[in-house]
Parts: sequence; C-alpha cells; structure tokens
Amino acid sequence: MSHTAELIAVGTELLLGNIANTDAQMISQGLSALGINVFYHTVVGDNPDRVRQAVDIARGRADIIITTGGLGPTCDDLTKVALASAFGKELYYDEPSAQRIRDRFAAMERPITENNYQQAMLPQGCTVLDNDWGTAPGVAFESGGVHVIMLPGPPRECEMMFNYRAVPYLKGLSDGVIASRTVKTFGIGESAAEEKLRALMNSLHNPTLAPYAKPSGTELRITAHADTEAEAMALIDPVEAQVKEILGDVVIGVNVESVEEVCLSLLKEQGLTLGAAESCTGGLIAKYMTDLPGSSAVFRGGVVSYTDGVKAGVLGVPQGLLDQYGAVSPQVAEAMARGAKAALGCDIAISSTGIAGPDTDDRGTPVGLVYLGLAYEDKCYVKEFHAGHVARERVRRQSAQTALDLVRRYLTGLLK
Amino acid sequence: MSHTAELIAVGTELLLGNIANTDAQMISQGLSALGINVFYHTVVGDNPDRVRQAVDIARGRADIIITTGGLGPTCDDLTKVALASAFGKELYYDEPSAQRIRDRFAAMERPITENNYQQAMLPQGCTVLDNDWGTAPGVAFESGGVHVIMLPGPPRECEMMFNYRAVPYLKGLSDGVIASRTVKTFGIGESAAEEKLRALMNSLHNPTLAPYAKPSGTELRITAHADTEAEAMALIDPVEAQVKEILGDVVIGVNVESVEEVCLSLLKEQGLTLGAAESCTGGLIAKYMTDLPGSSAVFRGGVVSYTDGVKAGVLGVPQGLLDQYGAVSPQVAEAMARGAKAALGCDIAISSTGIAGPDTDDRGTPVGLVYLGLAYEDKCYVKEFHAGHVARERVRRQSAQTALDLVRRYLTGLLK
Repeated sequence: MSHTAELIAVGTELLLGNIANTDAQMISQGLSALGINVFYHTVVGDNPDRVRQAVDIARGRADIIITTGGLGPTCDDLTKVALASAFGKELYYDEPSAQRIRDRFAAMERPITENNYQQAMLPQGCTVLDNDWGTAPGVAFESGGVHVIMLPGPPRECEMMFNYRAVPYLKGLSDGVIASRTVKTFGIGESAAEEKLRALMNSLHNPTLAPYAKPSGTELRITAHADTEAEAMALIDPVEAQVKEILGDVVIGVNVESVEEVCLSLLKEQGLTLGAAESCTGGLIAKYMTDLPGSSAVFRGGVVSYTDGVKAGVLGVPQGLLDQYGAVSPQVAEAMARGAKAALGCDIAISSTGIAGPDTDDRGTPVGLVYLGLAYEDKCYVKEFHAGHVARERVRRQSAQTALDLVRRYLTGLLK
Repeated sequence: MSHTAELIAVGTELLLGNIANTDAQMISQGLSALGINVFYHTVVGDNPDRVRQAVDIARGRADIIITTGGLGPTCDDLTKVALASAFGKELYYDEPSAQRIRDRFAAMERPITENNYQQAMLPQGCTVLDNDWGTAPGVAFESGGVHVIMLPGPPRECEMMFNYRAVPYLKGLSDGVIASRTVKTFGIGESAAEEKLRALMNSLHNPTLAPYAKPSGTELRITAHADTEAEAMALIDPVEAQVKEILGDVVIGVNVESVEEVCLSLLKEQGLTLGAAESCTGGLIAKYMTDLPGSSAVFRGGVVSYTDGVKAGVLGVPQGLLDQYGAVSPQVAEAMARGAKAALGCDIAISSTGIAGPDTDDRGTPVGLVYLGLAYEDKCYVKEFHAGHVARERVRRQSAQTALDLVRRYLTGLLK
C-alpha cells in the first residue's frame, strides 16, 4: 500500500523568515527514499487555532502527518497539545521521559525548571521516540488510519530524530523493507547524469534510480523494496554496478558525502599528508578539509596567498614568474603547489590561482578562469579550469572542490 | 489597514527535498519589514488540481497570495494557468512580454523554442512585473479583495523580482511609505538583546523594533510608517540612537551584513592590511574575508597551521613554547599572530588556536576553548574565548567571527 505524508512545521520564526524550513527538505528526502509520497508542506506559527486548522486540512488528504517544532518548554508544547486534542487523545505523565529529562539536565550541570516536565506529558497510547539529542521526546501514534509523528524543530535534533526514530517507525508501516544506496559523483550535472542514465532509469521498477542535485555533486539514489534487507541489497548491487559503468570516473564513492571526505579516507589509507596554497579560493580548500573531524591526521595546513608578496615570501614563487606570466597562470599554479609542498612539509600539495570575480585583474584575465596545481614526489600536474562567468561564491566553491577532486584522482591512479 | 499574506510555493523539487524553500524565507523577511502578517506557507507540487486546492484554502484566510515557481516553459506555466482559472481570468497574449523574451534569447545567443511564448500569455487586467533576471514575467492582479502576485522560483530571480517588482506593488497597497533600517550586532544573542530592549520595544508603536537572530549576529530592525520616506527616516533616527545607546559596543553598524564587511571598510578607510594564522578555524577567517569582493586590497593572506610543524616552520612559533604550553595556549596564540604579521607582511595579524571538537587533544583541553591573538605595531592582544561544548562547525564559525570582531574593536579603539 502506498502512503501519502504531509509535513507541518510549527514556528513563528519560519513565518518571519528568521530561518528556512530545512527540516522539510531533510524529511522530504528521507520520505522519498522510503517511497512515501509528499503532496504538501505547510508552515504555521505558534498559534493553537491555526495549528489545529492545518492539521484538520492535512488529515483529509494524507495518511501520515509529520510535525516539526513546537515541542519545547518555551512554546508550551503547543504542537503536542494541539495534535492530541485534534485526535481526541488525553495526555499522561510519562515517568521514563521525565527521568530522561532529569538525567539530561544533570549531565549538562544545569538546574531544571518546572516547565521542562511538561515535555513528559504524552498522548495516551503513543510510541515514545526517545530524544538523545535534546530534551523534548518525540511522539508517534495512529488514530483513525492516520499516523502522526511529532519531531523537535532544531535542525540537527530533527535530523537525528527523523533518521533514528521516525524512519524505523515508518519502515514498520510497510510490508517488507525499503533500502537505498547513494552513488556520489563529482563533475557532472544533474541533467547530464539524467541523460546518460535515462534508458536505465526507464527500464527499472524495483529498484528505482533517481538523480539529486547537491552543491557537493550530483547523487544517484537506488531504492529497492523487498522482504528482507539482504534481498533489497541484492537488488541494488547490479544497478549500482551499471551506474558506475555508465558514469565512469566521475563516480567518487557510494554512501559518501563529499569529495573531501573521500580524500580524507584515501589519504589515511595510503598514509599521505596534504597541504594547500590558495589564492582565489582564499582558504576554502583548507576549510573543506578541516570541516571534517579527524582531518588533522592528514591535513598539515595551508597558505592563503592572496597577494603576490605572500606568494613570493611564504611560498617562494619566483618574482620573475609573477612578472612574466601574472599570478593567474599555469606557471604560478605550479610554483605555488611546489612551494607549499616544501613549506608545509606535506606529501601532496594543491594550489589554486584564478579570478573569482566580480572584477577581473589588470591583465584582463576572464572571470572564472582558474589554474589548479598538484605537486607530488618531484612532479607537478596543472589543470586549467573554467568555472564560467558565475557568482563569486560559486567560482570559489567549484574551484576548491575541483582541486580536491584532483587529489582524489591522483590517489586513485586516474591522473595521467 | 493591516494585510495578511499567504505564500504558496509550486514545485515538485521542493516536495522531493531537492531544495529548501528559501524563497519563502526571503519573502517572509520582506513582508515582515512591510508590516504584512504571514500566517501560513504552503508548498505544493507541479499538479494543477493540488495547486488549485491550495489557492482555494489560501483565499479564505489571506488577502494577499504570493506564489513562487511554476512559471517557466518546462512546467507549462502551471501556476499562471491555475491562478487565472481560480480567479476567473482569461489569458491574453501580451506582445511587449513576448518581445522581452525574444530580446533575452537574442542577448544569450540562444535559439528560442516555441513553448517560451506561452510565458507571454497573461491574465486579463493584470499588472505585468517585468523580469530583468530571467524569461518568465511576473504578474500581479486583484480580484474580489484578494491580491495575487506570481513570482518565478529560482532563488536569485525570485529575490530580485520580489525586491524590485513585488515590494513597490505591495507598498502601493498601503497609504504612505514603510521604511526600515537594521542595526547589526555581534556577540549578543537574540534573547539577551530582547531583554535589554524590551522596555523600549513595548513603548514603541511607530516605528516598531524587532530582533532577528542571524548566524552572523542578532539584527534589530526598526520599521516606520509615514507619509514620506523622509518622515519615516525622521521617526527611525531617535530609535536607532536609543538602540545604540542601550546595546553599546556590540553594535557593529547599520545596514551592514557582517563583521567581516565592517572590517573590510575600516581597513580600507585606515589604509591598513590584515593577515591571519589559523589553527582551529582552519581557513575560515581567510574564507570570510575573501568572500567579499574587493578584499584583495586589504587582506594579504593567511597561514592555516593545522600541525605543530607548520606553526614552527612557517610561522616561526618556537618549538619550546609548543612543548611547554601546548598548541592551545595564549602563548602560542601570541606567537602565531606575531609570526603571521612578519611572514605575511601585514599591519595587523589575527590568530586562532583551540579545540573545535568533537575530540579533545592529548592534554585534555576542553572542546570549545579557543585563544585568539591580534598582533599590531610591536604589541599583541590575546583573548580567551569559550565557544562551549557545541558542534564543531559552530565552534569554528564563532571563533572565526570573534577573531574578526577583535579586528573591528581594535580599529574602532575599543580594544583596551
């Protein structure tokens, strides 16, 4: 049986535009992977009557209602009270939930205020979704054929509660299991990937294959429905192999988040260290690497050489090269990478030099033209990259990620 | 008369979670500044019946409906057709809009396909909102006391069309003008700011004063309603002065986006250059500065010294200091800042060294403890900063922004 879900986000801060409804995006992705349709998202403020109105509309057109927000003590647990009332459920005091709240405050060494216990008042007959990431427990119940799931609003808490509490509950609603696997790519757009995979996508029913555009690279999600996890995986395996075969070396991995994550794993495996010399990316390569916990084991550091003086002084780029070819040149990209490798004492060094825009340099170099260097052993590879005349932020992001993709290609033997 | 708006976003990609509904956030902020209430956001897929259902619900509870998305040729101009039908309007072929579409394709040197002309079919009696940022024109009309505004979905196009087309139209709905000004702070939370300003906020009717939590620092928005822009500004001036008086030195500027933007202006005014030596912030300080166009005039560069070897080798931090006090110490923060000032040849250098987490170092330094240095002339100021045991990304962001706030404080004579 196919289910239809509706998401209701409760929070005046969303209606004032203080935050975007990223919870809805995250949950929609998860529901899509479970094969559950979503026809509407609704956002409503901290107002009991309007929450009730949104619920009454939703129950008439969906058999799963997932709410986010409005569960904490500051909003008087508005969502829980409104939903329990809408579905004719009494609230009871759940001692195990109260104990978890007490324990959590004790661990934070903060005094507990009385209004926190209100969070332990739960609808009769509900499934408690224990919250290991915050104080307000989540709740799930069924009433008159409609399943209601309530999750806290803060994005990280919501994500953990959805993935580790709501998803298992939702899987229990369907016969068999739904499993999915994601093939991550770098350097191919969603529409180009779709074109290459269209024949395969159209030929599939179970598993299904769907592309997702992400800033960190297009993802291909393979989703299978079967009686057991093992059977679902067996359905996914050959499709994964076909996707890899068709897309080739733009595939960076399976169930991985980003090219930097792949680089970190490869560097650790091979016992190599990395460093960076950044001009137009201005620290972004270092930021991407150091965003990852554990990166200090392989990332030695970087130099942001935003001026010729720093390129010459810290990285030892010969002033003659800068004068003759300009800072945005393959020669300087190479000298920066070699200089960083020596100065930082790393096994591999990458460099970037280009024009992020909106203005060009005094040589009239086009905006979006970037040279990337990769120094290793006593050699250096240089790549010319054209980000195109796009926004500054995008030139910088694409350049930094393309530099990291060079590292991945080098470490997997793809760099010729 | 007070207006109530409802936002309807049309797009299956939102329901699949491919993108977040950032258009709703942007528009909500703008409506809030205009004093227009927003009680609901709805997201619906590319389905005419469901769009119609969402519109029928919205017209019963709002007198302004703003739609985003569903205007281009790929979706058969679904939104325009559905809204015209819901409000009983015929579509007509608008030759000026067709000409603009022709001109746009000519400028892009791309052939025009027939389905693009469908975008020139507009509801009878509407106000055309010319689109200078894409092909699909926006539309506004009034019917039975309800104002309908249709905007394209791609975020940048939507933002431009909202600010330059919808906002003037909406201002025309109220008598007089609404103007606002934003006081930007750094280092004070929304609730702390609200507490300090509560008496003032409660005493005000026109202008009004409202706090907004932003990752780059709490904003206080002062909004006035008057017959003319000049009268509105005259109402805002004394409130701005009071807000500054009450909040003191956490105010970083008026109508500015971020502390790095303030630093860039101050450095340019004073003819000074900046550099950075980053350990725990791993390139973020450099990223923030180089995110800004024109930053190369004052930001010389940075060193990301993620390992002791780079701290010693590139920044010249004495190995004895590292051994005696550890990398996370005020002594090393000072040596890093002084070393960066020398190596990068800048007037002011900032440094960061701390534990971003999730793991601590081998000395058991608490996660979230960070030392920030600021070297200038032959002096150095060091600040101990506690980000608390929060997520890695937050420790890094707060540390980098606090370092930049030190630069602001130094340049405005606040650093004692």
